[in-house]
Amino acid sequence: MPRSRDAARANLENLYRIFTVPEAPDSTLGAIDQAITDDVAGFLQTHIVAIERNLEAIEANFSSFTIPEEPTYVSEYTEFVKENLVAHSVHTAAPGFVGHMTSALPYFMLPLARLMTALNQNLVKVETSKAFTPMERQVLAMLHHLVYRRADDFYPPWIHNSQHALGAFCSGGTIANVTALWVARNRLFAPDGAFRGIAQEGLASALKHRGADGIAVLVSERGHYSFGKAADLLGIGRDNLIKVQTDAHNRIDLKLLREECRRLQGRNILPLAIVGIAGTTETGNVDPLETLADFAQELGCHFHVDAAWGGPTLFSDRYRSLLAGIERADSVTIDAHKQLYVPMGAGMVVFKDPTALSAIEHHANYILRHGSKDLGSHTLEGSRPGMSMLVHAGFSIIGRKGYELLIDMGIERAKTFANMIRHHPDFELTSEPELNILTYRYAPPAVQQALEKAPAHHCTAINALLDQVCMLLQKYQREAGKTFVSRTRLRMARYGEELTVLRVVLANPLTSYEILEGVLEEQCEIVHQPEIQALLCQMEEMLQCEPKPVAGEGNLKKVAW
Amino acid sequence: MPRSRDAARANLENLYRIFTVPEAPDSTLGAIDQAITDDVAGFLQTHIVAIERNLEAIEANFSSFTIPEEPTYVSEYTEFVKENLVAHSVHTAAPGFVGHMTSALPYFMLPLARLMTALNQNLVKVETSKAFTPMERQVLAMLHHLVYRRADDFYPPWIHNSQHALGAFCSGGTIANVTALWVARNRLFAPDGAFRGIAQEGLASALKHRGADGIAVLVSERGHYSFGKAADLLGIGRDNLIKVQTDAHNRIDLKLLREECRRLQGRNILPLAIVGIAGTTETGNVDPLETLADFAQELGCHFHVDAAWGGPTLFSDRYRSLLAGIERADSVTIDAHKQLYVPMGAGMVVFKDPTALSAIEHHANYILRHGSKDLGSHTLEGSRPGMSMLVHAGFSIIGRKGYELLIDMGIERAKTFANMIRHHPDFELTSEPELNILTYRYAPPAVQQALEKAPAHHCTAINALLDQVCMLLQKYQREAGKTFVSRTRLRMARYGEELTVLRVVLANPLTSYEILEGVLEEQCEIVHQPEIQALLCQMEEMLQCEPKPVAGEGNLKKVAW
Repeated sequence: MPRSRDAARANLENLYRIFTVPEAPDSTLGAIDQAITDDVAGFLQTHIVAIERNLEAIEANFSSFTIPEEPTYVSEYTEFVKENLVAHSVHTAAPGFVGHMTSALPYFMLPLARLMTALNQNLVKVETSKAFTPMERQVLAMLHHLVYRRADDFYPPWIHNSQHALGAFCSGGTIANVTALWVARNRLFAPDGAFRGIAQEGLASALKHRGADGIAVLVSERGHYSFGKAADLLGIGRDNLIKVQTDAHNRIDLKLLREECRRLQGRNILPLAIVGIAGTTETGNVDPLETLADFAQELGCHFHVDAAWGGPTLFSDRYRSLLAGIERADSVTIDAHKQLYVPMGAGMVVFKDPTALSAIEHHANYILRHGSKDLGSHTLEGSRPGMSMLVHAGFSIIGRKGYELLIDMGIERAKTFANMIRHHPDFELTSEPELNILTYRYAPPAVQQALEKAPAHHCTAINALLDQVCMLLQKYQREAGKTFVSRTRLRMARYGEELTVLRVVLANPLTSYEILEGVLEEQCEIVHQPEIQALLCQMEEMLQCEPKPVAGEGNLKKVAW
Repeated sequence: MPRSRDAARANLENLYRIFTVPEAPDSTLGAIDQAITDDVAGFLQTHIVAIERNLEAIEANFSSFTIPEEPTYVSEYTEFVKENLVAHSVHTAAPGFVGHMTSALPYFMLPLARLMTALNQNLVKVETSKAFTPMERQVLAMLHHLVYRRADDFYPPWIHNSQHALGAFCSGGTIANVTALWVARNRLFAPDGAFRGIAQEGLASALKHRGADGIAVLVSERGHYSFGKAADLLGIGRDNLIKVQTDAHNRIDLKLLREECRRLQGRNILPLAIVGIAGTTETGNVDPLETLADFAQELGCHFHVDAAWGGPTLFSDRYRSLLAGIERADSVTIDAHKQLYVPMGAGMVVFKDPTALSAIEHHANYILRHGSKDLGSHTLEGSRPGMSMLVHAGFSIIGRKGYELLIDMGIERAKTFANMIRHHPDFELTSEPELNILTYRYAPPAVQQALEKAPAHHCTAINALLDQVCMLLQKYQREAGKTFVSRTRLRMARYGEELTVLRVVLANPLTSYEILEGVLEEQCEIVHQPEIQALLCQMEEMLQCEPKPVAGEGNLKKVAW
């Protein structure tokens, strides 16, 4: 069958081509590439469609479940990507996209990321990364120094030490947090006499050795969901992730924390770790780290600080003190793809004790040999890309002072936005910004007044309606595609119940005050939507049928709505 | 102090610049970017230094542990990167780099990777990824179909199902394997009456509920080191990762596997999972998957297949049958950054039962809400980049037939190289290639003959010297930088002991037969190094002082060396 032989040869030639012949500059992909090189913001603005398409409609373009038999031309595929993937992506870099923790990237990150991809180094071992290994070790040392500020003579023996690593570079904060608790668990149950350690013998044997019925991690109710995953993964159980209620400032309630610890003791459960949060995901507040450090010391347990978001505040001379006590943490998580402005997929965890990671050390015959400098022997992940190069680039090009400016601007912008909200009659600030995150909700003046006067248990019905308004407001705004805020549910000490609130994260240096005013203006427009108006009318009726307080009885004797 | 105010303003302006002004095409970074666009292979060839520099010398450039105070010009930093990072990287894409699993990338991956970086989508939730979520769900369905080939009407209800996911996209095979065993563990200890499941109550409570003393995972001694990490992480303990010896073909010994299972039963330890390997990391062999599936069924335990390397063999009509039985696995790991030719940082695990991932499901208030299509509710990782786009691109542009060609060429190239080694007097093939990986070692003819005649226990001394030769050979070759093979230690059934061997992975389509001949020729040159010659002389002396067999006593009565 000469025809099929010809086809096979043609296939083979095509195959060699894709490995050897670069994209021509005038090809579709070449043109896109050039457009992004020239002006990524312009490219994204032009190509990301502002009007939201229904998710189900997008799914229709991604519904075949068979891998195509025949190859496709790169140009044809690129057209598909442009129309169906790029056009319906989220413009995370837009200055009006203030709802999540992903924001703009400095321009130099793109060509450097391409260089990184082209080099395709694998950081699991020196043999496939060479200079990238010392570079990543340096990045970890720099981060360690940022957090712990150890003396100058501390670092030289550890930075390139073949037995140890000052931290672990991870795909993100979740793996960083898991790694921290994994280390804490393995250190709590280290080899001891005949007991060969939890890594070797497992959790059941470890508990038996210590005569305990379980281990627990304590964190505030604002803790990131990764701690729930970690508790599950590490065999601790989600029941033993003790979520301590927060005070009015979204910080862990220390009295309740002490009570929880006493309860654990009564149940013969060992405290494994206390987690402090330096920038909660939802409100950006910082736990009292000094006090937590004292308490962890008192208990003799691991103290982990999740500074995935707020860690880079340490760059700021003005605001660094907000994180005072972080240098006493046994481990600290900081995400690079958040406030270090590195593309998605980069997190780190550093350990105060440079030998801590030995607790999870592992080796293999073909790599990670004893005495090698392979970073893979101290990471949860195996093969990993050279993302640390982009952190190195950020540290070098932006510098400490550049990051300081970014941090200071974000915090000040959040204060200003909080003031705008406070002075706007139709909005209620639901959490004061401490770093650059705040929450608020839509609540017309009459409703705000009514809520203030009413006793807490009478507010439930009104709050339920406001929750619905909030949800719809966020949905309509997201769908309109001009600006974007996110939403969450927070238990608010004031009402003693969970409310739906809008959440704003101010990390993009290009987010101007005009844009923030625009966010509120747009929301005031959106509430004219019939669906929301119906809810507001319902609310008004409620307020009207509220009986006037009987003279002499004061506000407390209202009939429940 | 007007000077410092001016400096601050200048800093601020610089900061805005890096977020708004693209690199000029004539800047250093612009030029590098263009050079990579034009011809990445050429760029790497020109810039990656062939002669190995001492690691300690490289470390000197990465030894400062303080983050620079002041910003650096992008051009200055780029020069640094070129001279100190690029120049001393490993040219993983070179056709002579046949030692590890990282090889060349098709050209189109680079501009598409840049597009992915520029879009900076976060796959944890639809709100920050939109079209990327359906795209990733499609990629997982395609991989599921490749492995399980379920009927056409199976997929539509599951592919975009808001309650479920057919698999999880991960940063790599390690997280994929951990995810598989995590799911297996949580399904073994699912909620049952008053017991609320291991995710909630933890491992100790789970074991008590089942009245068991532990759980175990069984895998051959060739299993990837990620299973050790998983056993540690999940609280199982490395002792309970039972590494079953392999037969002469590096496949799990079924008789020994049954014996191990009986032993576990005697110790009241539940078998959690049997792991079959489809392409061992060191030798590329495939376990008897059908038989393992039968056995797992008999035991009623989870059957996981680690096809991180060999999975794409399923593309090949000719070789697919090597993996027969994989469709009976409860979960299968396949790495995209290996034989799907995607840049570093992409692995996947798919589950036969589309509801399996519910066992590790998690939610949070601000994202991953119940009923959302957010992929993050079923992954170990949190925020993740849109790497699945590059798998989608590979599937579309290369197509099933293109991947088939790559697989077939690799396997055939390995067979040919095995023949070259077999026919070369100075080398000994230590593992037959089944897929595209093989191992061999340097052993002069006289030594090979002596080893053949000598009883196994007499070979130890000679093998120890050959191990040293092997180690030096690999080191010198790596340092010369022309070609690269890796090395590992394998227990060889024939000698009953571990040997050091050279390991070759043949995945780069540009690796020609001439290059492979060159690898052997270079090695024959390297053995003339004085250090290796000294070892060979020592070996020769050993062979000479070996006493001639006494007449009538045969070969068995030799004096031990």
